[in-house]
Amino acid sequence: MKYFIINGPNLNLLGTREPGIYGARSFDDYLAELRAQYPTVELAYFQSNHEGALIDKLHEVGFTADGIILNAGAYTHTSVALHDAIRAIAAPVIEVHISNVHQREEFRHRSLLSAACRGVICGFGLDSYRLAVEAMLASGK
Amino acid sequence: MKYFIINGPNLNLLGTREPGIYGARSFDDYLAELRAQYPTVELAYFQSNHEGALIDKLHEVGFTADGIILNAGAYTHTSVALHDAIRAIAAPVIEVHISNVHQREEFRHRSLLSAACRGVICGFGLDSYRLAVEAMLASGK
Amino acid sequence: MKYFIINGPNLNLLGTREPGIYGARSFDDYLAELRAQYPTVELAYFQSNHEGALIDKLHEVGFTADGIILNAGAYTHTSVALHDAIRAIAAPVIEVHISNVHQREEFRHRSLLSAACRGVICGFGLDSYRLAVEAMLASGK
Amino acid sequence: MKYFIINGPNLNLLGTREPGIYGARSFDDYLAELRAQYPTVELAYFQSNHEGALIDKLHEVGFTADGIILNAGAYTHTSVALHDAIRAIAAPVIEVHISNVHQREEFRHRSLLSAACRGVICGFGLDSYRLAVEAMLASGK
Amino acid sequence: MKYFIINGPNLNLLGTREPGIYGARSFDDYLAELRAQYPTVELAYFQSNHEGALIDKLHEVGFTADGIILNAGAYTHTSVALHDAIRAIAAPVIEVHISNVHQREEFRHRSLLSAACRGVICGFGLDSYRLAVEAMLASGK
Amino acid sequence: MKYFIINGPNLNLLGTREPGIYGARSFDDYLAELRAQYPTVELAYFQSNHEGALIDKLHEVGFTADGIILNAGAYTHTSVALHDAIRAIAAPVIEVHISNVHQREEFRHRSLLSAACRGVICGFGLDSYRLAVEAMLASGK
Amino acid sequence: MKYFIINGPNLNLLGTREPGIYGARSFDDYLAELRAQYPTVELAYFQSNHEGALIDKLHEVGFTADGIILNAGAYTHTSVALHDAIRAIAAPVIEVHISNVHQREEFRHRSLLSAACRGVICGFGLDSYRLAVEAMLASGK
Amino acid sequence: MKYFIINGPNLNLLGTREPGIYGARSFDDYLAELRAQYPTVELAYFQSNHEGALIDKLHEVGFTADGIILNAGAYTHTSVALHDAIRAIAAPVIEVHISNVHQREEFRHRSLLSAACRGVICGFGLDSYRLAVEAMLASGK
Amino acid sequence: MKYFIINGPNLNLLGTREPGIYGARSFDDYLAELRAQYPTVELAYFQSNHEGALIDKLHEVGFTADGIILNAGAYTHTSVALHDAIRAIAAPVIEVHISNVHQREEFRHRSLLSAACRGVICGFGLDSYRLAVEAMLASGK
Amino acid sequence: MKYFIINGPNLNLLGTREPGIYGARSFDDYLAELRAQYPTVELAYFQSNHEGALIDKLHEVGFTADGIILNAGAYTHTSVALHDAIRAIAAPVIEVHISNVHQREEFRHRSLLSAACRGVICGFGLDSYRLAVEAMLASGK
Amino acid sequence: MKYFIINGPNLNLLGTREPGIYGARSFDDYLAELRAQYPTVELAYFQSNHEGALIDKLHEVGFTADGIILNAGAYTHTSVALHDAIRAIAAPVIEVHISNVHQREEFRHRSLLSAACRGVICGFGLDSYRLAVEAMLASGK
Amino acid sequence: MKYFIINGPNLNLLGTREPGIYGARSFDDYLAELRAQYPTVELAYFQSNHEGALIDKLHEVGFTADGIILNAGAYTHTSVALHDAIRAIAAPVIEVHISNVHQREEFRHRSLLSAACRGVICGFGLDSYRLAVEAMLASGK
Repeated sequence: MKYFIINGPNLNLLGTREPGIYGARSFDDYLAELRAQYPTVELAYFQSNHEGALIDKLHEVGFTADGIILNAGAYTHTSVALHDAIRAIAAPVIEVHISNVHQREEFRHRSLLSAACRGVICGFGLDSYRLAVEAMLASGK
Repeated sequence: MKYFIINGPNLNLLGTREPGIYGARSFDDYLAELRAQYPTVELAYFQSNHEGALIDKLHEVGFTADGIILNAGAYTHTSVALHDAIRAIAAPVIEVHISNVHQREEFRHRSLLSAACRGVICGFGLDSYRLAVEAMLASGK
Repeated sequence: MKYFIINGPNLNLLGTREPGIYGARSFDDYLAELRAQYPTVELAYFQSNHEGALIDKLHEVGFTADGIILNAGAYTHTSVALHDAIRAIAAPVIEVHISNVHQREEFRHRSLLSAACRGVICGFGLDSYRLAVEAMLASGK
Repeated sequence: MKYFIINGPNLNLLGTREPGIYGARSFDDYLAELRAQYPTVELAYFQSNHEGALIDKLHEVGFTADGIILNAGAYTHTSVALHDAIRAIAAPVIEVHISNVHQREEFRHRSLLSAACRGVICGFGLDSYRLAVEAMLASGK
Repeated sequence: MKYFIINGPNLNLLGTREPGIYGARSFDDYLAELRAQYPTVELAYFQSNHEGALIDKLHEVGFTADGIILNAGAYTHTSVALHDAIRAIAAPVIEVHISNVHQREEFRHRSLLSAACRGVICGFGLDSYRLAVEAMLASGK
Repeated sequence: MKYFIINGPNLNLLGTREPGIYGARSFDDYLAELRAQYPTVELAYFQSNHEGALIDKLHEVGFTADGIILNAGAYTHTSVALHDAIRAIAAPVIEVHISNVHQREEFRHRSLLSAACRGVICGFGLDSYRLAVEAMLASGK
Repeated sequence: MKYFIINGPNLNLLGTREPGIYGARSFDDYLAELRAQYPTVELAYFQSNHEGALIDKLHEVGFTADGIILNAGAYTHTSVALHDAIRAIAAPVIEVHISNVHQREEFRHRSLLSAACRGVICGFGLDSYRLAVEAMLASGK
Repeated sequence: MKYFIINGPNLNLLGTREPGIYGARSFDDYLAELRAQYPTVELAYFQSNHEGALIDKLHEVGFTADGIILNAGAYTHTSVALHDAIRAIAAPVIEVHISNVHQREEFRHRSLLSAACRGVICGFGLDSYRLAVEAMLASGK
Repeated sequence: MKYFIINGPNLNLLGTREPGIYGARSFDDYLAELRAQYPTVELAYFQSNHEGALIDKLHEVGFTADGIILNAGAYTHTSVALHDAIRAIAAPVIEVHISNVHQREEFRHRSLLSAACRGVICGFGLDSYRLAVEAMLASGK
Repeated sequence: MKYFIINGPNLNLLGTREPGIYGARSFDDYLAELRAQYPTVELAYFQSNHEGALIDKLHEVGFTADGIILNAGAYTHTSVALHDAIRAIAAPVIEVHISNVHQREEFRHRSLLSAACRGVICGFGLDSYRLAVEAMLASGK
Repeated sequence: MKYFIINGPNLNLLGTREPGIYGARSFDDYLAELRAQYPTVELAYFQSNHEGALIDKLHEVGFTADGIILNAGAYTHTSVALHDAIRAIAAPVIEVHISNVHQREEFRHRSLLSAACRGVICGFGLDSYRLAVEAMLASGK
Repeated sequence: MKYFIINGPNLNLLGTREPGIYGARSFDDYLAELRAQYPTVELAYFQSNHEGALIDKLHEVGFTADGIILNAGAYTHTSVALHDAIRAIAAPVIEVHISNVHQREEFRHRSLLSAACRGVICGFGLDSYRLAVEAMLASGK
């Protein structure tokens, strides 16, 4: 099994950015642990602050990966182009969020991506990513 | 660990109700399997079509259970009273949905409960419940 | 033919409640007359002020009755759970209203149930129920 | 008893127009059957695609007919002028629709006419017209 | 000076239609008196229930009349086509209403025509027409 | 007959303020002419930029004047208090505007006062005041 | 005098539920004190988390009690059925809230019940109930 | 104890203004009775139709009075400046209304002041003021 | 190939009407040139200011023409009936506009017809019609 | 150069009012310092809680001052009359706010004045006034 | 003549992406044919999934190309920056869409670009591009 | 002191782009002058049309610069990702605009960035940047 974890804007600052909301741990650190937990799964990783780069990456891996775990950050709430990219590819995409976006500003309550994704997991901190791996594995992907 | 799974209106019909959306398996059948998967976890279960009965149950178990997994069905979209009940109790509550509600009618896109819950998991079929158990366990609850 | 007439909240007070809007006749009185008019049809009756009890009843009779005539009263305007219950059962449901809800307050103009029902009849006083029986019979149900 | 059935725009195409929604039977054919069912009732008929012609006809017959059965088609959703015409005449008007408009596009959910009519019947196919005749007769009109 | 008074839908029923709102006098009766009051002004008159006929008439007289006094009735609130017709002609148009539309239903509060007209006079009963004649004369038209 | 003309905020600047919209003539100049035109009518005048002062004046003269001609300027669009003051007094009030407010910014299209006034006259420049005098006289006030 | 105090969902948890908002005192404790303050008034009490049970109770006591003091909790914001129940009974109903709902979430600012009640008292902690008793007594009920 | 009662626009006309809504008694008359009922409380009084004068008065007394009872009349629905004035002073403010504003026009349903006040009392006629005095006393102010 | 060009309200005034927006050329003049450009195509033409007449014409030619080029003018923004007529016929319909409606008033930005048409061409002056002919030919119609 | 600083409602309380938002310094204190910083600029000052008085002052100084620095406080969000006053005068007006209004309540995000002003400066505490002086000087006013 | 065809996000997947909506042909294939059809026209081509890259390209070619044919894909509905880029350059821009966006999701009905473009062509499959070339040529560009 | 000026999309065209709105001077030219005015301040500069590049730059300099002056151009109105980037860094950010955006299209009135910035300066042409430097210096940053 090969899954891609794709992180969107500002998620490169995890660990330093608003730790009250996002926690104090860097994503690299977490990813190492996650890979250790699932030794039989290949977990590739990509992060960009560029909407276009996220779309390029979805196109690039979206026909060969077994699944994609996408935390599109703020683009979740504004990007029709990412919605279309998810629709355009073959791999199933799971939308994840670290924080419970429904407890934050009103403009974070609406996701333009959910309707194009298989499912949504939000609010469990970094553990949201592991749950998405679990969900992927359970569906045989 | 003792968790409560609480299902809301119409979920007693799982397996017969709109199988295209909700699948053809009864919840009892699934629950047996889930309990087998987590032998060290006590998984209690309650279902009701009555908003008031769901609130009563949350009050009853909300100070002793280690966690609650709540699929409030259609009350998700209309019940401020359930929101308040979740706020009023001590146990953490995870909101789950079987279908990806964001791919359905507009009135299912808004949840009145998410802001009161720890996190949300939706769209993974019955596996959404198992992922919630996973999330509970990971948080030490 | 066996049809169920199901009345929602406050309709137990028919005859005493706001007679300027709902008329001065009790439902029992009317029902006796209606049964006399259609001797070959079995007309069962249920009323409750509890949203959950209305759902329970729809589940209970919704797979054996030939048709259901539903006046959900105020729940018409607020209940997604009843919408789902109607969708979940096999029997056709006709939505009826005694008064012409479109001539009353704005919040009574929107029905959450109509899209799940076969059809809607409103504004003919108690005769709305008889018209629903007629509609059921005409469709061979 | 003399009732007028007035049909609005595009209803002249019944039987050929979108049969999946409106059925495959012409209105003339149905009307003959309806007249046969109610031999003591005079059922006059008028159809036009012109909003103004519908208003003219309501004025012409609205002070002598015992009742009017109006399917204003698409003008239901846009015509304040028809609303005013119904208010301006003496005969009671019943609004009918062949399809269940609440299961179709959002812009068909709002009726500008309902508040001016005695009652509304929708969703029973061509049988909606017969039910309106029944409703008229029951009210002694 | 030659002015055209153009009345829209349902205004042919003045005197019989909802006298509580529109008064009990016919327009013909009033027009005779108005003409007597302004013997040097030629007051032509046209009424139709057809939106298209009102547009045709505006086109026909809109390049030769010195002014047009338009009570478009219910089309005031729904017709972009009349707005365009007023814009397309040379003669100034004054919008009049018999009743004070702002004291009635919400949907009568918005006029699609006002922005295309020179001015608006509403709420003075039939005297609204005379005030419009006065306004025309004062502007030298 | 004694009428009061009451002008609201910024109307003291007539003649200097945005002459493209409001014209280049001072109100004093116009008022002298208007009084000359109606020698048998007493035309009192008051202007203030203070919402409270306008209310005070309406209270002061609203039980003895035969009519009030009110151009509330920008308070037209924001003042519920003036609406209430008009409702609270005995004299009829006519709302006037110099410009056609419907051709200007969206926030000038809504009047909070119209529903409390007898009628509305707008768009005829300073002649709007004379038309209001005419309307008052015609109603025997 | 016999008054009924009816409390809605989650108010059974008063004293333990979010004490920062609702205070740390149980309702039973407060009620004993209130009864002591008004020895000549009979103060009956009912609490339920079930919307239907609240309606049933209003029906049961609404024709014999001298007055009803209703804190419908979260149903205040969602229940048209309670609005109708209040309208359907004879006894006057006063709406009370412990907290100042206008200082909380947006969805608590709108009450569906106020328009059906005699008056509203909110924001005075448990003293809101005593003020309602005072208001009842002052009106001779 | 020294409380200030502050009344806003048009409340000087109490007793003559729309008695169907506001009653036929003058405020002076009522105030004398209220003072007699609470001999140990000093009840000062101020009324103005000027928003600015109400703000000035709140500033003047807001740091020395023990409490303020404010019926801001129509400014309740439009004044952010009064909201800020209440926030800026030290004395607690209780919002009162004579009529049940929720049974009246839509634009009276929204209060801009409630969120800045301690609590709200509305719908009990002039007795609303006495209830506010009671509420002040009960809180030890 | 036989195509119908159908023009709606006010388009009979092309060349005289607001030439800044619509150009100074009459449609007849343009049509002659267009026919000359496509000698093998039969281009029939119809114009009416009547919504009903446009519907009648669509019905009349909509089952025999190879294609219809429709500039419904202002009815584009208000007519559900034309939407239905387009849906009801067999011939493909292309929506055209002379001006770029998106650069004009807000109420011209929404088309009720686009969803029923094959495609939309707007903003190219009279050349929009030729482009529609090209589009028809390219699709083999 | 002569500039006017005009402060609106509640700004007389600067230093005592909500110091967490507005700071603990009085405006007089600040103004003395500001004048010292710009010895060649005449800085006149006016404050009022009365909307009308602010308009009067704008009229009085708006044709002779070289510039006006306006902090209209809460009237920023509700006053069309101030918008009009700014438009009506000759001097350029700069809108300033002490706090960053966009970080506060939703109703403070909309300014009715900005469109009539030359520019806007907000969020820099009292330094906002100095920046406005700088902006005035830079534009040669 | 030199025109630029610029395609936005996901259009690089044409032929593989949702062929039911976008067809099964690659854009390269189509472009070769289009160039063959217009041998005297130079048709340059650029595609990017990056909003910024599309803006860069518009800047780069927008002062030398004779025209630009832009299918901005999903950015059509979300990008004010592209709107500004189109406004900022000299070359005329035509907006094209392959599918009829008005028959798809609501969020595709609004274009932020149309008001900045010369015209719009949508719904004709790949032929939309050719029609845009035709439109460019006809305007002498 | 080291400040970063960051300009967003289309601002590279300053001097050529819509000079009526943005002026005829290039930013390089202005920047040279600005640096000369503040010799002790280091003013670094970055411009990009790419939303992602702006975020990258904010991350890169946001922990070392003393302040950031951001004109995000059109991204101001659409980018939640930039809002998050501003929140995520340590340096204070001032939002500037050259034109008074409130006098332009409605969609430019809303800023998604203001709530994350220290303050906002708009409408002073290029001088807006100098005012921001002044504001930074005054706050000791």
